[in-house]
Amino acid sequence: MLYRQTAVMGIGQIGASFALAGKRAGMIGHVVGVARSQRTRDAALRLGAADACTEDPSAAVWEAELVYLAVPVQAMRQVMCDIAPNLSAGCLVTDAGSTKAQVCDWAAELLPDTVAFIGGHPMAGTEKHGPGSASADMFAGTTYLLCQGTASEPVLERFRELVVAIRARPLLVDPHRHDEVLAFSSHLPHLCAAALSVAIGRSRTEDLLAFAAGGLRDTTRIASASVEMWRGIFATNAGNVLPAAGMLRDALDEFIAAIEAEDWERVASLLAQGKDFRDGLYGLPEE
Amino acid sequence: MLYRQTAVMGIGQIGASFALAGKRAGMIGHVVGVARSQRTRDAALRLGAADACTEDPSAAVWEAELVYLAVPVQAMRQVMCDIAPNLSAGCLVTDAGSTKAQVCDWAAELLPDTVAFIGGHPMAGTEKHGPGSASADMFAGTTYLLCQGTASEPVLERFRELVVAIRARPLLVDPHRHDEVLAFSSHLPHLCAAALSVAIGRSRTEDLLAFAAGGLRDTTRIASASVEMWRGIFATNAGNVLPAAGMLRDALDEFIAAIEAEDWERVASLLAQGKDFRDGLYGLPEE
Repeated sequence: MLYRQTAVMGIGQIGASFALAGKRAGMIGHVVGVARSQRTRDAALRLGAADACTEDPSAAVWEAELVYLAVPVQAMRQVMCDIAPNLSAGCLVTDAGSTKAQVCDWAAELLPDTVAFIGGHPMAGTEKHGPGSASADMFAGTTYLLCQGTASEPVLERFRELVVAIRARPLLVDPHRHDEVLAFSSHLPHLCAAALSVAIGRSRTEDLLAFAAGGLRDTTRIASASVEMWRGIFATNAGNVLPAAGMLRDALDEFIAAIEAEDWERVASLLAQGKDFRDGLYGLPEE
Repeated sequence: MLYRQTAVMGIGQIGASFALAGKRAGMIGHVVGVARSQRTRDAALRLGAADACTEDPSAAVWEAELVYLAVPVQAMRQVMCDIAPNLSAGCLVTDAGSTKAQVCDWAAELLPDTVAFIGGHPMAGTEKHGPGSASADMFAGTTYLLCQGTASEPVLERFRELVVAIRARPLLVDPHRHDEVLAFSSHLPHLCAAALSVAIGRSRTEDLLAFAAGGLRDTTRIASASVEMWRGIFATNAGNVLPAAGMLRDALDEFIAAIEAEDWERVASLLAQGKDFRDGLYGLPEE
């Protein structure tokens, strides 16, 4: 057992999955789950993700050896303020937020020197939410990004052991580099899916589903994700998201200009650029 | 048996699937497959999708009761010109093209009065291609859109019977309405996925996959589809695709302006618009 007493702030899909996976691996002991809603707390207890629940973050961290922050990014700062006075010396605080530079800065600023902070970002989760969609297998085979934060090597090594035990691949990354890459690998796809959903919705096209195949479903899927979570991501990574969004707008404008000009060779060349990139990333579609 | 002798022009994924499904249902007999590449012809024969193969469209339609055009949309016109002189009186010509107004116009203009034409669009297929990715189950549970074209009611009814036999749901639609709706349900999602792939590719971000979850994979999946097929779709539906693309650009610009202004309430409101539309279409994500 690496951490006997754990507090999970925000025992939703990711927080509850972390608790379930860590318990199953025998790496974490007693878990106190924190959620504002009674329904979420009840579900976390029922599923065995938490042994006790509270709505009070500062009470939950009492005697905790590990504090796991799984709230939306924009709520991190307040949670850190709430728990800072009650954290035990030697405790490890880590988070599962989707951006890292801002969160690491907040941790350095707000948490006491007697505790360690490791930034974390499990590349897992679905468009669903709540402990009811949690699973002890949520992290199996996924990458778990880590930013060293204020943690010493032994403290980092210990947490890395837990990440491996829940069957994820730990990968150490600089927080600024994390946010730069994620702007393209995650935040831009989300912005794109959201804008597409907005545009199609505004068209008020009737009977869309009768005329749709898998493309519409897949390209818009992530637009169903939590609004609160994504507002926080854009708010804490605007500096990287804006240039990425500009590149998407440029590419879209090039397509539109080529179609307007009836320049089908140019349209084909742009389509081929997109296909080459996608095939290079995920492999050629099989014949 | 509804059609004893069938010619399939373009025996790729859709053409071969149609042949396999129609044969399994006992609705079509001898199939002559047409493809330019020897490799495709060999695969179609090996899989039993075709009983004979040729690269000559005009030879393939000889004595055919059913001619199935499954070539990219922009190749339809030439194929119709090639086969028109050799079509048997009473023959039914149908297609599986992704746009319908232009194809129905070409058929009315180019095919002899002694044959009937029904426009078709099976809402099936994957980003893969070639007969190797065909399946007799390809159409099971999918919608098969039909435009009556020049067909009489009995001729349409007969083909509809075949569509039901391959386990698809036939749905009659006006070709112009088809192209208007598809601009939003299919062509705009494709344009969006292609532009996103182009933009991410140009960023030359290293190690993207280590930092990506399902969102990147799903939002870009259809960008892997055939360039030739999609060039044809945009070329034959530009009049509907351009206004749809303009709406996507507007939505994207609104997101960008809100992020630039750090107006997170506005960002959240746009995200909620996209989520509401998506949830309304496919249902709320489960908790």
